[in-house]
Amino acid sequence: MELLVLQQYIDIAWVFLASVLVFFMQAGFSMVETGFTRAKNAGNIIMKNFVDFMIGSLLFFCFGFAFMFGPDVGGFIGMGGFFNPQNLTDIPAFDSVTPELFIFFQTVFAGTAATIVSGAVAGRTKFSVYCIISAFVSLIIYPVVGHWAWGGGFLGTMGFVDFAGSTVVHSVGGWTALVGAIMVGPRIGKYNKDGKANAIPGHSLTLGALGVFILWFAWFGFNCGSTLAVTLDVGHIAMTTNLAAAAGGLTVMLLTWAKYKKPDISMTLNGVLGGLVAITAGCLVVTLWGAILIGVIAGVVITFGIPFIDQILKIDDPVGAIGVHCMNGVVGTLLVGLLANYLPGTEDAVTGLLYGGGFALLGVQTIGVLSVAAWTVGTSFVLFFVLKKAFGLRVDKVVEIEGLDVHEHGIEAYSDFVSRMN
Amino acid sequence: MELLVLQQYIDIAWVFLASVLVFFMQAGFSMVETGFTRAKNAGNIIMKNFVDFMIGSLLFFCFGFAFMFGPDVGGFIGMGGFFNPQNLTDIPAFDSVTPELFIFFQTVFAGTAATIVSGAVAGRTKFSVYCIISAFVSLIIYPVVGHWAWGGGFLGTMGFVDFAGSTVVHSVGGWTALVGAIMVGPRIGKYNKDGKANAIPGHSLTLGALGVFILWFAWFGFNCGSTLAVTLDVGHIAMTTNLAAAAGGLTVMLLTWAKYKKPDISMTLNGVLGGLVAITAGCLVVTLWGAILIGVIAGVVITFGIPFIDQILKIDDPVGAIGVHCMNGVVGTLLVGLLANYLPGTEDAVTGLLYGGGFALLGVQTIGVLSVAAWTVGTSFVLFFVLKKAFGLRVDKVVEIEGLDVHEHGIEAYSDFVSRMN
Amino acid sequence: MELLVLQQYIDIAWVFLASVLVFFMQAGFSMVETGFTRAKNAGNIIMKNFVDFMIGSLLFFCFGFAFMFGPDVGGFIGMGGFFNPQNLTDIPAFDSVTPELFIFFQTVFAGTAATIVSGAVAGRTKFSVYCIISAFVSLIIYPVVGHWAWGGGFLGTMGFVDFAGSTVVHSVGGWTALVGAIMVGPRIGKYNKDGKANAIPGHSLTLGALGVFILWFAWFGFNCGSTLAVTLDVGHIAMTTNLAAAAGGLTVMLLTWAKYKKPDISMTLNGVLGGLVAITAGCLVVTLWGAILIGVIAGVVITFGIPFIDQILKIDDPVGAIGVHCMNGVVGTLLVGLLANYLPGTEDAVTGLLYGGGFALLGVQTIGVLSVAAWTVGTSFVLFFVLKKAFGLRVDKVVEIEGLDVHEHGIEAYSDFVSRMN
Repeated sequence: MELLVLQQYIDIAWVFLASVLVFFMQAGFSMVETGFTRAKNAGNIIMKNFVDFMIGSLLFFCFGFAFMFGPDVGGFIGMGGFFNPQNLTDIPAFDSVTPELFIFFQTVFAGTAATIVSGAVAGRTKFSVYCIISAFVSLIIYPVVGHWAWGGGFLGTMGFVDFAGSTVVHSVGGWTALVGAIMVGPRIGKYNKDGKANAIPGHSLTLGALGVFILWFAWFGFNCGSTLAVTLDVGHIAMTTNLAAAAGGLTVMLLTWAKYKKPDISMTLNGVLGGLVAITAGCLVVTLWGAILIGVIAGVVITFGIPFIDQILKIDDPVGAIGVHCMNGVVGTLLVGLLANYLPGTEDAVTGLLYGGGFALLGVQTIGVLSVAAWTVGTSFVLFFVLKKAFGLRVDKVVEIEGLDVHEHGIEAYSDFVSRMN
Repeated sequence: MELLVLQQYIDIAWVFLASVLVFFMQAGFSMVETGFTRAKNAGNIIMKNFVDFMIGSLLFFCFGFAFMFGPDVGGFIGMGGFFNPQNLTDIPAFDSVTPELFIFFQTVFAGTAATIVSGAVAGRTKFSVYCIISAFVSLIIYPVVGHWAWGGGFLGTMGFVDFAGSTVVHSVGGWTALVGAIMVGPRIGKYNKDGKANAIPGHSLTLGALGVFILWFAWFGFNCGSTLAVTLDVGHIAMTTNLAAAAGGLTVMLLTWAKYKKPDISMTLNGVLGGLVAITAGCLVVTLWGAILIGVIAGVVITFGIPFIDQILKIDDPVGAIGVHCMNGVVGTLLVGLLANYLPGTEDAVTGLLYGGGFALLGVQTIGVLSVAAWTVGTSFVLFFVLKKAFGLRVDKVVEIEGLDVHEHGIEAYSDFVSRMN
Repeated sequence: MELLVLQQYIDIAWVFLASVLVFFMQAGFSMVETGFTRAKNAGNIIMKNFVDFMIGSLLFFCFGFAFMFGPDVGGFIGMGGFFNPQNLTDIPAFDSVTPELFIFFQTVFAGTAATIVSGAVAGRTKFSVYCIISAFVSLIIYPVVGHWAWGGGFLGTMGFVDFAGSTVVHSVGGWTALVGAIMVGPRIGKYNKDGKANAIPGHSLTLGALGVFILWFAWFGFNCGSTLAVTLDVGHIAMTTNLAAAAGGLTVMLLTWAKYKKPDISMTLNGVLGGLVAITAGCLVVTLWGAILIGVIAGVVITFGIPFIDQILKIDDPVGAIGVHCMNGVVGTLLVGLLANYLPGTEDAVTGLLYGGGFALLGVQTIGVLSVAAWTVGTSFVLFFVLKKAFGLRVDKVVEIEGLDVHEHGIEAYSDFVSRMN
């Protein structure tokens, strides 16, 4: 037993811990999405969340990992290791934490990107169509972006900083959610003929809140685990993550209190999530006060961005996924260019704009954001477009009104209560 | 501070992590069992789950551990260490991770076996009777089986492979559930006079789904932690566990979609659990593709096994515990005999049937499955039989119809809603 | 890479794990508090739990940590490190697990103290007033107590033993809850004119039970992590924690069964929590059988203490927070003086009264309990008094009757169900 072996064991335990925490985000997303939508579609949302991870695990194992970490082809995509990615060579993490543990870690990240979409298209999308969309995210849309930033592709080479995935994970899910919400169209009753938006409240704020706490809990694994090894920066990342989440939620609470005279609960919960998404890119390289600032900005983005999407753009996103994951994924990534001034292990790195680093990093971050947006919007648009022409995206009107649970799955999520109520 | 001490510290942290994850299965089982049954009995199910772990923790500490890991008597049972098992000697894990941590780890495993029973007898069993049954599982039924396989008994000596407990934990719970469901009889209204089975839907699919996600999350601790030390195989076990769960759920989704024209949600959730149970025996010794195959088979077992129990055998198992834990516990253990071909730390072990290992291992696995079945069915039958004669197993008809919560506990789980509905 | 560095890495991973588990208590408290109270106030309770941790994280970072661990002033308070506590020096844990990780660990502990209050004042307290109270707990009330016991203050110097915080965390939350419940007064309809107490059942026993399981799970991090390093005692602490919880719950179940002829579910759940609170002070220094005894005593305290508060003292504490956290925090701390006889790493420490240690430790424990009570009751009384005079503590009668969710937040937690019921 040698020192290096012990160090490897420590890192194996660490990456395992981070991975299972990230896996647990599936539970969090399920609860948020189902809690914030209506009871008649609760089973359908649940099923979509399971589909995301079941299909995603299998496809990412067979193909996605190969596209993301296989030998680089032109800086754009990996190619190699299909069906047995554990046999790939030349992947540094394979040597440090074993091939299969690294694949497991990457699988749970891929599952996170896929699961973001379901909330935005909730309540009116065909289940069969959704399964195909979800499959493509894990199969190719996410892995290509992952390759660009983390797998040897052109963004990583340029110096793009997205430590745990504000852009790579969250904006990919968020842009796909945006395209999906537009292509599928709003739910019946969401917008009046004069264009006025109606609120369609969810069926369980308590499940939604449980989901947010689960996500906050799991996010520590998401961000701190992205080191892939125990380092002296674990505490720093945990603190930036936590402060941004707290500042994001508190900012929304105060702003909605001022704006509507009442502190808005579901918006505040989205503020916490927005803070978490925004800090994800820079959690290692911003200071603690930088993290608080990022959280505050994320809160502002949520407070004004979600109503902007809902009421001005008239895009029906039942759970606010676009504001949380797309907008704050973008904003958080760009803010790294302004605020990155913490050098891991010290307190005095100076690379970001505000601290004299110049516009170089901000430029790279912008290129990263734009190229990921172009790829994700482009591919997901083609996908939704083809599916629309081929099968249609929406369920029939009667299905939407009576609920997807009954028509698509032959069940009611709360049948015991429902039978008493009728 | 020496290297060996550091290694011990790593393993202590590891076993602690695994143990608390396994503990968290209690929350998962509670949510699955209560979500899949009716609101009027929700409090009763909750209470049974707490009883399982409260009584189980105390009895396993005082007696169960002594029966499982005390000095071997004839390959059948351990004897020694009652009331203070931490004073036992000659237990290798005591030296590696300290006595009390190993006892803690074994306690949470014992609690898992005990908690499987409550779902199968839900909705009509006397609470007092249930407490006695649960106590006997932790006191003697599970510890004896554990001794056979893991505590120095005859199955371990024969080379029986049940890495994390498809047979030892899940089939013990599952066989007891089977005997219980038969002995207690079906719920009122479950079967018509002509024998037709009626579906009695649960009261919260969302809580059920949350429970399944919690179990999936915790299962990584269950399987990966059974190494009792950080090894290079952690990632392999995590991957086999995850792929089998995903394949199990997806298989059920596709089969029920084909069979009923609609993808069935609660069956799919049971498919995930079935895949997890089935991979538990072989998670260390099958390949990744072997794990996918095991998951697919588990999905087939769920899809056809649960309706077989329900409609052909006419055994009323409200949550599908027999299909999930008993059937897949058995199938998963036997499949190790066919598919075990991964030598930990390498990629080329050849011991299973399909890969040239011959029928030897399959024979041992079969002996293990049958002997555990005989013991568990035998002891639990005697137990249920005596309790039936002495006290009766079922609540009165009026209690069953109006709900166990009101009559057995003087409460309604959702009284605030109920009062509004009435 | 040297041995000491590896050891530090192990401890960093360990404290991270403990911290995220303790964070997850926020989810547990939310579910317990919301499940045990009425649906019309569910969103309000949720929001209070988020406020506790959002405000708490920011204030504890800016001020609380400085009061708790800054350079000692007269044994009473710390002073130094405001706004950037990571720059403090002379804190031993900063050297072992890095400054920011230690701050993170202390932040989640502070959040636990703050969140205890919300349940006791549920259903009638103004949200704005609650935000101020919660802020003061994290800002000053808790940090001063923390300084006394753990930050270099007079209690630690005297030899006060409160390993993980029965007094420091739980009794601080509990005393504040007591003062709050008295000052705010009972909910409308809680007490008849003749003084008879009416039960006001909660709206979801299943969410409450989920919360208790989450807390039990997280408590292993709370107690075992308070070592701040992996040690040989991790298993001992896990076992004492688990046995006390099991014994606490089981005692209440049996006592309520005897007392009311029916085993009471919500009381049993509080029995588990009471056992956990009581063992928190002594989890490292009592034997396993000492832990069982502490759990049994905690169960007795819950069984008789909660009705005493409710029916004799006529203090309306909707979730039983005073019995769980205040009474058992006190009892558990005092019992250390009687039962502490386990010397970490061995089996034969003799310091407590029952084992010949004399009254010395019991005296110190009593001083600790009383001084913390005096400080917490005093400061929180002043706080509530000033707020009462300045703004009033209670919402209007119509708000209380129709629900805080609608009036304070403009939402209904279960609007989709409610609309169907009306």
